[in-house]
Amino acid sequence: MIEHKDAAALIARMGEAARQAAVELAQASSERKQAALTAAADALHRRQADILAANNQDMEFARNKGLADSMLDRLRLDADRLGGIEQGLRAVAAQPDPVGQVMAEWDRPTGLHIQRVRTPIGVIGVIYESRPNVTADAGALALKSGNAVILRGGSESLHSSQAIHACMVEGLRQAGLPAAAIQLVPTRDRAAVSAMLQAQGLIDVIIPRGGKGLVGLVQQQARVPVFAHLEGICHVYVDRRADPDKALRVVLNAKTRRTGICGAAECLLIDRRYDERHRAALIGALLDAGVEVRAEGELATIAGTVPAQADDFGREFLDMIIAARLVDGVEGAIDHIRRFGSQHTESIITEDAAAADRFLGALDSAIVMHNASTQFADGGEFGMGAEIGIATGKMHARGPVGAEQLTSFKYLVRGDGTVRA
Amino acid sequence: MIEHKDAAALIARMGEAARQAAVELAQASSERKQAALTAAADALHRRQADILAANNQDMEFARNKGLADSMLDRLRLDADRLGGIEQGLRAVAAQPDPVGQVMAEWDRPTGLHIQRVRTPIGVIGVIYESRPNVTADAGALALKSGNAVILRGGSESLHSSQAIHACMVEGLRQAGLPAAAIQLVPTRDRAAVSAMLQAQGLIDVIIPRGGKGLVGLVQQQARVPVFAHLEGICHVYVDRRADPDKALRVVLNAKTRRTGICGAAECLLIDRRYDERHRAALIGALLDAGVEVRAEGELATIAGTVPAQADDFGREFLDMIIAARLVDGVEGAIDHIRRFGSQHTESIITEDAAAADRFLGALDSAIVMHNASTQFADGGEFGMGAEIGIATGKMHARGPVGAEQLTSFKYLVRGDGTVRA
Repeated sequence: MIEHKDAAALIARMGEAARQAAVELAQASSERKQAALTAAADALHRRQADILAANNQDMEFARNKGLADSMLDRLRLDADRLGGIEQGLRAVAAQPDPVGQVMAEWDRPTGLHIQRVRTPIGVIGVIYESRPNVTADAGALALKSGNAVILRGGSESLHSSQAIHACMVEGLRQAGLPAAAIQLVPTRDRAAVSAMLQAQGLIDVIIPRGGKGLVGLVQQQARVPVFAHLEGICHVYVDRRADPDKALRVVLNAKTRRTGICGAAECLLIDRRYDERHRAALIGALLDAGVEVRAEGELATIAGTVPAQADDFGREFLDMIIAARLVDGVEGAIDHIRRFGSQHTESIITEDAAAADRFLGALDSAIVMHNASTQFADGGEFGMGAEIGIATGKMHARGPVGAEQLTSFKYLVRGDGTVRA
Repeated sequence: MIEHKDAAALIARMGEAARQAAVELAQASSERKQAALTAAADALHRRQADILAANNQDMEFARNKGLADSMLDRLRLDADRLGGIEQGLRAVAAQPDPVGQVMAEWDRPTGLHIQRVRTPIGVIGVIYESRPNVTADAGALALKSGNAVILRGGSESLHSSQAIHACMVEGLRQAGLPAAAIQLVPTRDRAAVSAMLQAQGLIDVIIPRGGKGLVGLVQQQARVPVFAHLEGICHVYVDRRADPDKALRVVLNAKTRRTGICGAAECLLIDRRYDERHRAALIGALLDAGVEVRAEGELATIAGTVPAQADDFGREFLDMIIAARLVDGVEGAIDHIRRFGSQHTESIITEDAAAADRFLGALDSAIVMHNASTQFADGGEFGMGAEIGIATGKMHARGPVGAEQLTSFKYLVRGDGTVRA
């Protein structure tokens, strides 16, 4: 491991190399980018033993550091997980190329023909924690969208990330693309993160992948734009006219399918006028599934619930816990979500089309759903093939961020000696 | 005039009011927004005398301050200019409403139906110099796109801007929309500008309108995203296979139609293999039109030119001056523009389709043209009805920024009790 004393100089060098690579990448053909991704998948397949050996090194280091089991699990690679990463690369390879797509075109009375065409953004910085698969996923999406990328993985996953990164570089080389298109910061020095956040003019956008600590730090310190969500405080609202079976199915899935992801429901809002037996059945089903229901007011009289504290609303549990509250219809739900939500994903369960329209219209979360589980908040489920993250900001990218949202655009204007009057 | 001691507190109050108004505006119907704009145009028409009186006050203040004639001209209003502002309001009123537009929609194998729908951004801050018409233009575009706006006009135009702003507020009131939707900072205190630039969480994007000094300051100090261009260093490249008549027409128009706008050409690049007589005729026509041609190398031997200095390339003259240089074909032009351009607008003059494709493909300016004058770089000419500015950044908005680019989006997802496997 190299310990770079001068992280800023390192990032400046990497940034310059990335900018040069970006010029080449912006003009690379779809076939060439696809070839690089396929060759990287092949390399990953071939080098499985090397990658697992590197991962063993990381796991040992992490165990000695006393990392929690959940962290160790995120770090761990095996043949299955490597197979998943390889399939991910092939899936992105097979996606349509967003670069050069004509987003709109029109003619003007002056005789000009105007096209709005997708272009890469330039250089993307990705800062992530222990999951080494991000090295491949983020590298692939950046390449697909014609962007150079600087990856800064978690210090625990350095060897695993380096082994996966070597496969990406082999893919680039085989396709005749610059190796600097996908760079991995080769140091555990945390100053490299700060240097990336300040690298205006070198890095165009930063995407943090990880817990609230990392994302908060990035949002606070970054001088370059950031695509991120700080928290996924997702709400499910069960309206008085909800179908009780759908409500049960969706609420259980939204909370329990996986509790550690940002699209997991953290708060259940029930219309005060929803049938009392159905209400009890819903809470009962959550309790039966092993969920701790932190209930407020009347709901807290249901056996098995625990009383909610004030700070349980607007809280991201990422666990088998849900806050629950009665609200006054769809307007009450909207008020609650505006106050406590994080603009990530909310869902209304109702058979009342007007209530659904009101909910979907009034809320301005990145994703607003009707009769569907919040766990669908995912680029793959949206049909984007893969995602580099989920954004809740309103500028440029929002919701699941796939290859298309890693692009900018330019206008191409064609005339015939056309001059302005 | 109120001198606010505490500019930050003022902007915080205005920002809070704007955020509240933004929630209402986001759900306002197209008809209501249109009615507000039409009523504002009517008010402007009715109150012409008041506005001109206010403008007289500003003109007197500016003359006493010893402002340059060009600044006085920008500040000055008359019946004609007021008529133009009124027509602008009516034109924006008649435009399609971007909010709620379905940008894309698709079905998923899970049964989910996904729509990507345009939403307002939230609160826009506009910081401008002496032109009082921006008060109406920017206010109208923000309202059309469902955004609240905080306007900070030049200190010289305070009375004029206040008089125009009063008409906008009358329009809002008549349509039953919150007056805080369009607010004007009521002070000449420059600290208000700094406070706006730091107002994260209150203002979502800042748009500066004015000279390089203002835009540079905003880009440097802003903690919120900025849509802007620092300079318009626009290039026209005349290829060896240019039609000489088109070259002459376009170059003259690009340089001389109006020299003070950001789309005016500042540098002429001529292919070394362009016919020598046509080359001389082109330079001669510029000289005849009264343009100072700062020529380099062989071009400087043409009678009437002056020798170019090194810093004449990459320089925004905003005057009857153009830098001129010979380059080695389209690749030489691309290299020069990448080095000296400001990613605003460039044009190639050629009958060679392959050369044009190469130029349009390789350059990543916001606008790249073929056989057309750079003076078309304008929202009106692009068919956007009006523009709030031109952006050269790659995030979110680029090129002329109209109502559509003042929007964000959200995903609406509809299922039928749909859960994730």
